[in-house]
Amino acid sequence: MAEIAEELAELIGADLEGDPNWKVNACAAPEAATAGDLIFVEGEKHADAARRSQAGCVIAPPGISFRGKTVLRSATPKLAFAKAAAILHPLALIAQGIHPTAIISGKARLGRDVAVGPYAVVEDDAEIGAWTQIGPYAFIGREVSVGSECRLNARVTLYARVSIGARALIHSGVVVGADGFGLVRDEKTYVKFPQIGTVEIGDDVEIGANTTIDRGALGTTRLGNGVKIDNLVHIAHNVQIGENTAISAQTGIAGSTIIGKDCVIGGQVGMGDHCRIEDGAILGSKCGVLPGKIIKGGIPVWGIPAKPLPKYKEINFYHDRLPELAARVKALEAKKPKGKRTRKP
Amino acid sequence: MAEIAEELAELIGADLEGDPNWKVNACAAPEAATAGDLIFVEGEKHADAARRSQAGCVIAPPGISFRGKTVLRSATPKLAFAKAAAILHPLALIAQGIHPTAIISGKARLGRDVAVGPYAVVEDDAEIGAWTQIGPYAFIGREVSVGSECRLNARVTLYARVSIGARALIHSGVVVGADGFGLVRDEKTYVKFPQIGTVEIGDDVEIGANTTIDRGALGTTRLGNGVKIDNLVHIAHNVQIGENTAISAQTGIAGSTIIGKDCVIGGQVGMGDHCRIEDGAILGSKCGVLPGKIIKGGIPVWGIPAKPLPKYKEINFYHDRLPELAARVKALEAKKPKGKRTRKP
Amino acid sequence: MAEIAEELAELIGADLEGDPNWKVNACAAPEAATAGDLIFVEGEKHADAARRSQAGCVIAPPGISFRGKTVLRSATPKLAFAKAAAILHPLALIAQGIHPTAIISGKARLGRDVAVGPYAVVEDDAEIGAWTQIGPYAFIGREVSVGSECRLNARVTLYARVSIGARALIHSGVVVGADGFGLVRDEKTYVKFPQIGTVEIGDDVEIGANTTIDRGALGTTRLGNGVKIDNLVHIAHNVQIGENTAISAQTGIAGSTIIGKDCVIGGQVGMGDHCRIEDGAILGSKCGVLPGKIIKGGIPVWGIPAKPLPKYKEINFYHDRLPELAARVKALEAKKPKGKRTRKP
Repeated sequence: MAEIAEELAELIGADLEGDPNWKVNACAAPEAATAGDLIFVEGEKHADAARRSQAGCVIAPPGISFRGKTVLRSATPKLAFAKAAAILHPLALIAQGIHPTAIISGKARLGRDVAVGPYAVVEDDAEIGAWTQIGPYAFIGREVSVGSECRLNARVTLYARVSIGARALIHSGVVVGADGFGLVRDEKTYVKFPQIGTVEIGDDVEIGANTTIDRGALGTTRLGNGVKIDNLVHIAHNVQIGENTAISAQTGIAGSTIIGKDCVIGGQVGMGDHCRIEDGAILGSKCGVLPGKIIKGGIPVWGIPAKPLPKYKEINFYHDRLPELAARVKALEAKKPKGKRTRKP
Repeated sequence: MAEIAEELAELIGADLEGDPNWKVNACAAPEAATAGDLIFVEGEKHADAARRSQAGCVIAPPGISFRGKTVLRSATPKLAFAKAAAILHPLALIAQGIHPTAIISGKARLGRDVAVGPYAVVEDDAEIGAWTQIGPYAFIGREVSVGSECRLNARVTLYARVSIGARALIHSGVVVGADGFGLVRDEKTYVKFPQIGTVEIGDDVEIGANTTIDRGALGTTRLGNGVKIDNLVHIAHNVQIGENTAISAQTGIAGSTIIGKDCVIGGQVGMGDHCRIEDGAILGSKCGVLPGKIIKGGIPVWGIPAKPLPKYKEINFYHDRLPELAARVKALEAKKPKGKRTRKP
Repeated sequence: MAEIAEELAELIGADLEGDPNWKVNACAAPEAATAGDLIFVEGEKHADAARRSQAGCVIAPPGISFRGKTVLRSATPKLAFAKAAAILHPLALIAQGIHPTAIISGKARLGRDVAVGPYAVVEDDAEIGAWTQIGPYAFIGREVSVGSECRLNARVTLYARVSIGARALIHSGVVVGADGFGLVRDEKTYVKFPQIGTVEIGDDVEIGANTTIDRGALGTTRLGNGVKIDNLVHIAHNVQIGENTAISAQTGIAGSTIIGKDCVIGGQVGMGDHCRIEDGAILGSKCGVLPGKIIKGGIPVWGIPAKPLPKYKEINFYHDRLPELAARVKALEAKKPKGKRTRKP
């Protein structure tokens, strides 16, 4: 969806320098761009690559000059570029109309212009908001609620009774509402602890491919508005995740852990059960939080078990020099007056 | 399925105190319970929350008193509660009858009252036990055997020839019987090592969403009776898992590793190939077991590589104090008589 | 597909010793083999098990003798066995013909003898190479290109515009081309960074069950010829993987990381974004590579953060003896002349 530079600048809140009628067709990376493309640059470091690019239009912060290009000035070029992309690259439809092979219960309620792809199944008493697109093979269980303008890609599974807010973007293979892993030992075997709660997901949530979000045991697993989750993440029963928290791939969160707002959580992180991760916490990739622990906001944590990054770095500095430290201890022992101690290896 | 307190007490093996005719409707958490709900308390620590709860009926161990509630006395309240939940909350049907869109080979054999959901596929010579429910999109490959009273949720995939015992509960996205990852280097490329074995899974097994269990290379990948597996777990070719072992989310087990009975394995654990995990072993979350290693039962192991927890804790104590230790070594060096050595950083 | 020993020897490049007309039916493990089976042995260590085996035919390196068995001599027995397996065990068909429930766009182009299983969906302008088999529920998005002789198992998902080379083997639950995890903070919420690139996968690639490979943000996520990937692996946007690199289960690779040719990457490895893994690198299981780091080829790396294995081992040696080192420092302090310093715990 091409735009002329002047209009695009206004839509993304940038100041135009250059040809107001320059036609912008698409977003691109500098090295692959052609004349009709838009690129962005965040600072002087990558400015030369942008200057060499064939792109005719560039989003750049003040103070970086380009010859022969139309420039959209923005103090936040990457953000402006993301906004431009939303205009230039409208999302392709996941489904159009109601496919004749979709099986939709007569007791389900579909809002205006809901689209349902081939072989999707929508069960009794499910409710789907207006303009939501449901992809092929999506399974919408009984009494599920899905908000408006959602995009459920092929093969999303929503177990009975879960609820999803507006504008969700859910990728293929996601499973929401399977049983949590709750077991009670009965002498030699396990008895299943009831997994009869549900999952409530807010608005503007994105969930990556093959991620699993279990239903609450008795209560509710909750994801706040604006939560963003990457691929292959595991979210156990009764976990609570605050607004605008982002979680990278393959992270696992055990039961009843509470995560605050605006947290940034790396990939392959593990959290035990009943942890409390406070608002604004930052958890480095692969770190581990022991059950019941509290992680404060503001300062990144790192390592297994997780500790504040400066402390982690200080310890790690000495850890990496352990052979030298051991040699120094040995030297001290060897040089002790009167040589009372024997040598250590 | 409501029960009166007297009958419920008998069914779960508890002693009744209070109104024998009190009607119990559902299980709940104390803070969300209403008069018709059943809650449980395991000790004095949470007793006040239970006392404040509006629940009319509580399962509690001897010695904790409640005013105005019917009490079901049990020495194992959580277990009794789990048993009550199985009575009060019968599981919803995954499928009813044979859906007309299910594609079932004429050569498949279905037991009594098998239910098959929409768009499921059951291939030649598959055998499904009585009262088993097969969810939407389930794929049951050739010569697969599934026992009786199983619950296969939407989108379970069973490759050809795998076998599953009775009363299995398998969640969405589970893949059983895909090829193991076996490669042989042929100068510049890899040749596939044959993955022509199978998978045999015992009775009463639960498998969490999006978990993958590969078929044996030449032999058989085996899960014993009562094995419980969480979400996104990886079980490689030829792995053997003993009875009543529980494995938490995102754990990975490499080829030919043998795990005993009654093991408790945390989340994000990694085991190399050809390990031997003995009966009753306890593996802490995120720990790593090197290929070929043996883990004894009885004492928890922790860390990467895994070591007995007391040893891990002792080492970790000093690890966290490495900066202080280094400072002490430096002090010793500085104070050495005759000052022959120069300072170290 | 049985073969006589003489022909089999020739097909796999081995030298025959014994009965040239011995009929070989199948590959097997020594302990389970019967007379018509073929086994292999790589060295003297396992030769006795092979001698005790009932297998009538054995692939073995020179210098190991067997009484009463037909021997196929090869300097690379495991490789020869893998080649024999490909002959004796032709792969079962994933699909035959075009199933009547497959939904194939009139604008899709299918090569000769393409097979499509039940409930598969092939969208507009997709192109499928000759002899490719597409399993049940496979979803082939718009403008997807799949090469010839591919095997897409049940429930493979290919988002729009991705391309796959010839002879791919893709397992159930794999998702190729979902959005990368790209976010730009806009004061209180996130704006989606465009994920409008694609995925290009070379020839002879194998991808394990439930693995996810995200599309490029602006550019392309690329897997070279001969890449082999295990289950539940996460490959982020714009990752590049060189030819014949193998990646074990549950490994995660963050955005824009470049991996060379012939690398061997263990399970549960984590790589930050913008790493460079050079040709022939070897990454031990569970190791972690920090964002932007370079890993050289040739020498294995290990640990979190990853370091060369000899260095890792040396440090780990001292790490495991930290309590003793601390005790030695304490002893040095206690024995200092003039006793000026107080004891430390």
